[in-house]
Amino acid sequence: MASLAQSPQHSLKAFRGSFLDFIDDPFHSSVSESVRYISDGLLILEDGKIKELGAYDVLKDKYAAMPITSYVGRLIMPGFIDTHIHFPQTEIIAAYGEQLLEWLNQYIFPTEGKFSDKAYAQKVASIFLDELLKNGTTTALVFTAVFPVSTDAFFEEASRRNLRMIAGKVMMDRNAPDFLVDTAETSYQDSKALIQKWHKNGRLLYAVTPRFAITSTNEQLRLAGKLLDEFPDVYLHTHISENLNEVAWVKELFPESSGYLDAYDQAGLVRSRSVFAHGIHLTDQELKRLSEAESAIAFCPTSNLFLGSGLFKIEQAKSAEHPVKVGLGTDVGGGTSFSLLQTASEAYKVAQLRQQKLSPFQALFLATLGGARALSLGDTIGNFDPGKEADFVVLDLRSTPLMAFRNPETIATSIDELAEQTFTLMMLGDDRAIEATYIMGEPAYEREAKAQSLST
Amino acid sequence: MASLAQSPQHSLKAFRGSFLDFIDDPFHSSVSESVRYISDGLLILEDGKIKELGAYDVLKDKYAAMPITSYVGRLIMPGFIDTHIHFPQTEIIAAYGEQLLEWLNQYIFPTEGKFSDKAYAQKVASIFLDELLKNGTTTALVFTAVFPVSTDAFFEEASRRNLRMIAGKVMMDRNAPDFLVDTAETSYQDSKALIQKWHKNGRLLYAVTPRFAITSTNEQLRLAGKLLDEFPDVYLHTHISENLNEVAWVKELFPESSGYLDAYDQAGLVRSRSVFAHGIHLTDQELKRLSEAESAIAFCPTSNLFLGSGLFKIEQAKSAEHPVKVGLGTDVGGGTSFSLLQTASEAYKVAQLRQQKLSPFQALFLATLGGARALSLGDTIGNFDPGKEADFVVLDLRSTPLMAFRNPETIATSIDELAEQTFTLMMLGDDRAIEATYIMGEPAYEREAKAQSLST
Repeated sequence: MASLAQSPQHSLKAFRGSFLDFIDDPFHSSVSESVRYISDGLLILEDGKIKELGAYDVLKDKYAAMPITSYVGRLIMPGFIDTHIHFPQTEIIAAYGEQLLEWLNQYIFPTEGKFSDKAYAQKVASIFLDELLKNGTTTALVFTAVFPVSTDAFFEEASRRNLRMIAGKVMMDRNAPDFLVDTAETSYQDSKALIQKWHKNGRLLYAVTPRFAITSTNEQLRLAGKLLDEFPDVYLHTHISENLNEVAWVKELFPESSGYLDAYDQAGLVRSRSVFAHGIHLTDQELKRLSEAESAIAFCPTSNLFLGSGLFKIEQAKSAEHPVKVGLGTDVGGGTSFSLLQTASEAYKVAQLRQQKLSPFQALFLATLGGARALSLGDTIGNFDPGKEADFVVLDLRSTPLMAFRNPETIATSIDELAEQTFTLMMLGDDRAIEATYIMGEPAYEREAKAQSLST
Repeated sequence: MASLAQSPQHSLKAFRGSFLDFIDDPFHSSVSESVRYISDGLLILEDGKIKELGAYDVLKDKYAAMPITSYVGRLIMPGFIDTHIHFPQTEIIAAYGEQLLEWLNQYIFPTEGKFSDKAYAQKVASIFLDELLKNGTTTALVFTAVFPVSTDAFFEEASRRNLRMIAGKVMMDRNAPDFLVDTAETSYQDSKALIQKWHKNGRLLYAVTPRFAITSTNEQLRLAGKLLDEFPDVYLHTHISENLNEVAWVKELFPESSGYLDAYDQAGLVRSRSVFAHGIHLTDQELKRLSEAESAIAFCPTSNLFLGSGLFKIEQAKSAEHPVKVGLGTDVGGGTSFSLLQTASEAYKVAQLRQQKLSPFQALFLATLGGARALSLGDTIGNFDPGKEADFVVLDLRSTPLMAFRNPETIATSIDELAEQTFTLMMLGDDRAIEATYIMGEPAYEREAKAQSLST
């Protein structure tokens, strides 16, 4: 066999390190069926996509003439996927003292009002995307603000970085300040124009984004459904059943609906490309309906704790009988961290409070392939299968003195060791654990300094 | 008046910056009565103790000839106080998948077995104390291991750093592996010898430390009480009512007691220098008894979430009718962070889940003067009152790009601004927010590098 080294290779790249990804759902299959771990691996990219992943020893001769970027001693994973976040709320993260509805009125609505200014929106979008990359997040499903210019600003910044991002203009035509509402008709027209401009523009995708049932009239929800009919491969992104007062208010606002989800369902919004953030207080019947519709839930634990919303029942959402697609969401600014590692840490704590266990593999699945599947992108991103886009993150398991003391100097050679090391990573790690973030095979973020090691 | 600049000043030091401390309990008094904030202040130390704190403009002439260490733009607070932590568990922080009793058997007991080796204990004690200082913690109430050499090792390392630390040898004579148990009699004798060696040796203090009622016989608890009689100014440090299975087991083990606290009370362990970690499942009657006895509770939120133990009812413990002294504890290795900022963040989340509010001033009070009072050290440390020991921490409110974007460039000039800035500090801050830690007026830790600012 002719060595590939003899053919033109300007578009090929090779990375050596320890590779972890998921090839199936560890909630529904065994570790050996779901976890793929190559402790000394070689990843080959072609034109920014995965060409091949295998053991270094097996592949090294085939790619002998290629320069290799070495991350030996580092763990390389698919880029993290944040299934729910608000870019205009970056500056109001960690606002004190309120639960959902009061928090929206007191902090969020006034802040989002600033995003009618495109230059301001562009500045914040840039900071926001830098934070995502710094935290190893390569894809996110993003709320912009009600103003189409805020959506333009976001997509322009994401496009400049060649990111696979999904976003949409917020639709809200009631129960919000005057400076922040659209109308059912303008929201339809504006969203349509944005879809035509941005959906599938490069790596970008559009999500029809009614904020939540409280701030949308029936007519606005109906027109959102009409957009989904007209553009069947755009997304639906909204909130559901985050807070008990919210649930009660929706019941008042939609007396003709049997429940919160039904208010969306009657407008035709419950589909396979629909992503509902939170879902803490969903009934069994509603979870069953989401399962049937192949809709997804974004589980946002740091937000759910910060706003006191409650404890998401992940084992019910991931039940064998009526499984719902679930991803992790940071939900900044209700969430308190851009890091999906810290989000996984709090997901574990939420599970523990409910006497459930969330394994590191389950949590990291949610942050990668699980998130990709929740966003109907399981064929495009989320693991290292050939043909997928090469967004990945290089992780340092000893990024602080404490982690260097906790974790051994040698990276895991067994799955049990890997489980322990990745669990400490998600419990103790933060942005400092992200050594580099690659987008389509190109470096998009590289950590500057590293804290001194404590180990002697 | 003769200027002090004319008298010998080799023992005087001056620091300029923004100063925040507490002069009363913000759970029981107003912000204006409890919070002391000097946005441009001058702190004068003499022989490592506080001589004077005041506005820079007022004091500058009095100390005109003195060199001033400038921390203008930084917030200076009393050193943080950790009222419950285990130094031998540093290396097993973030161990997966269990709740209290199983977690002890699977992870903690095997780890603590290593601490019969003094050299090993010394190495870990050194790493542990470096982590405390790096996180701004200057005083802690510390579990060592059952082996007296582990206690010696800890005190030696703390003494070398001139720290005000309280610690004790663990007493445990049942329901633990053979390699980890003492007997009632040896625990009494060993503790007595350690008290004589270390209590009030420099800044060090001793705590009689039965692990918890499950691992101590009635006889061992009785002898612990005897030590408290013989040495009335040593502490009692133990656990209580952390986990429901634990509470049920104690009920079985102490059928003659009316409840968990009563098992300790009958042995004479419920006193004004007694500190009980957790107390999540205490009854109203037990809280009332703790209030009467002037005992303290260490609230350990990151641990309580990580081990799924439950949600501490802080507003009940801090009730006006029967107030109990409360401090914050990281409870490493059940806790997931050495940072009292991150601990305060999770305390806020625990409160939110219970529909309660924990203000930044309340949380930071718990981490400073509240902790000092919980440790009966309210006259020695905890704020900047004249005569107190000058352990303090210099905080950078813009220590990461995200915090630099969230917080303004100028430090707070009003209490409302201060509340917002300190809240974001506790929600978003970690060890990187600690610019320096001072012990008795001497620098004990200084941050190396700072992340680049995002702000433009």
